[in-house]
Amino acid sequence: MPRTTTTTVTVQFGDCDPAGIVFYPNFQRWMDAASLSFFMQCGVQPWRELVKTRGIVGTPLLEIATKFVTAATYAETLTITTHVESWAAKAFVQHHRITRGETLICEGRETRVFVRRDSDNADRLRAIPVPEDIKTLCS
Amino acid sequence: MPRTTTTTVTVQFGDCDPAGIVFYPNFQRWMDAASLSFFMQCGVQPWRELVKTRGIVGTPLLEIATKFVTAATYAETLTITTHVESWAAKAFVQHHRITRGETLICEGRETRVFVRRDSDNADRLRAIPVPEDIKTLCS
Amino acid sequence: MPRTTTTTVTVQFGDCDPAGIVFYPNFQRWMDAASLSFFMQCGVQPWRELVKTRGIVGTPLLEIATKFVTAATYAETLTITTHVESWAAKAFVQHHRITRGETLICEGRETRVFVRRDSDNADRLRAIPVPEDIKTLCS
Amino acid sequence: MPRTTTTTVTVQFGDCDPAGIVFYPNFQRWMDAASLSFFMQCGVQPWRELVKTRGIVGTPLLEIATKFVTAATYAETLTITTHVESWAAKAFVQHHRITRGETLICEGRETRVFVRRDSDNADRLRAIPVPEDIKTLCS
Repeated sequence: MPRTTTTTVTVQFGDCDPAGIVFYPNFQRWMDAASLSFFMQCGVQPWRELVKTRGIVGTPLLEIATKFVTAATYAETLTITTHVESWAAKAFVQHHRITRGETLICEGRETRVFVRRDSDNADRLRAIPVPEDIKTLCS
Repeated sequence: MPRTTTTTVTVQFGDCDPAGIVFYPNFQRWMDAASLSFFMQCGVQPWRELVKTRGIVGTPLLEIATKFVTAATYAETLTITTHVESWAAKAFVQHHRITRGETLICEGRETRVFVRRDSDNADRLRAIPVPEDIKTLCS
Repeated sequence: MPRTTTTTVTVQFGDCDPAGIVFYPNFQRWMDAASLSFFMQCGVQPWRELVKTRGIVGTPLLEIATKFVTAATYAETLTITTHVESWAAKAFVQHHRITRGETLICEGRETRVFVRRDSDNADRLRAIPVPEDIKTLCS
Repeated sequence: MPRTTTTTVTVQFGDCDPAGIVFYPNFQRWMDAASLSFFMQCGVQPWRELVKTRGIVGTPLLEIATKFVTAATYAETLTITTHVESWAAKAFVQHHRITRGETLICEGRETRVFVRRDSDNADRLRAIPVPEDIKTLCS
């Protein structure tokens, strides 16, 4: 069984659109939050610390795919269950399942890479191999 | 050639994260805006008018998939090129390509349905067949 | 002592800007969330229920004023302490204090009104007198 | 007459809440965008360039105050008219007026400071005197 974490989110009025349901990019916002929370729950420091010690500024996205099953609205509490589904040399796939009680709201995969600033051009972010110690903590 | 529209967005400081690049859920926010803009540029009224005349409250998502190719940052202008890639009986797939000049930033597909409020339970949204007149305007 | 509630928020990576600190409109987003949470903690139903029974669709803003004292960043937990500072016939002032431990981050006032949809024009929201029962629950 | 700039924003579906009107923190998001746009239209480089040449990372807020007059909704175009109302030694007040045609939607003031990273602690932002050349360009 891979390492799995959960985070919870309370849907707010301002997260919902004129149809009265969650405006969908917010689900991606919550998956992004669950992604970092996963690493921190596994014992990895937040990027603002890792950037100082190891130059890692975060884990930008290569690809996402989400299926939306049921709508959600405000004053509801959602649970996000997260694990890493696969690790490649330079990328990894995180899987997020968002539920309200027993009900599946949506399910998404994010393909991410660890990046460092390029030493020649601080504006460029460069993918690095998945750090072995982080992989070990999170598997 | 299917009907194709473009919209532009200027990336703002607040759209970017501590790594200095666009926080990715904002790309989905802009695709959602491009989705409605596509319909309006094709001659469809905004949902707040359609809800009065035809009960249609919008086009929620069944599925999304996006590939991120290059990062973008603030004070850059992006173009979103949008068309409908396929129409099924009850769903359709919109394709969005976000570019900065000649550079592809990201590319995504959104599978959507037209919905109306359920007559028995106003809290429920119910998918309806793609309206023929809208399909004709947008093809 | 007026009725006072607290809510907590964990600052997320995507809530922060390229300077690495909370993008300030998010503080207003959290105050808005704390505003509704205050009412619900006092025993008022969420607007999506009140709209059915009493036609109340929410409490839009007349005015806000916020002072920012110290910056906050992601992976920090903030507490929002909320109470109603004054009730007028048609408006009320909510006060929010956002702290990280003992440190004051910012402090804001929101002047709000209860609104209903106009019976002649559903697009118009019309301010109503502050409902007495709600005022009693929340004082 | 002080230097005055305008920017426009099209309100999107996702900027609106279940009451069908703009979720108010978005007005602050647009004022923040208008603030940087003001400087850039006056000939100041974006912060991501100024940080390299002069260490300036942005203009965080000390204080905001906004009055909301009329609601706005999606598929409407708003104009933001911006100028600096007063310059102090270390702070300045920007005034933003958001209109839809002739109609005033809201009006706000933001008190801001220019900041640089502290040389001893890169996590700390330190206010600096308003740069004279920027003040000259923007007055």
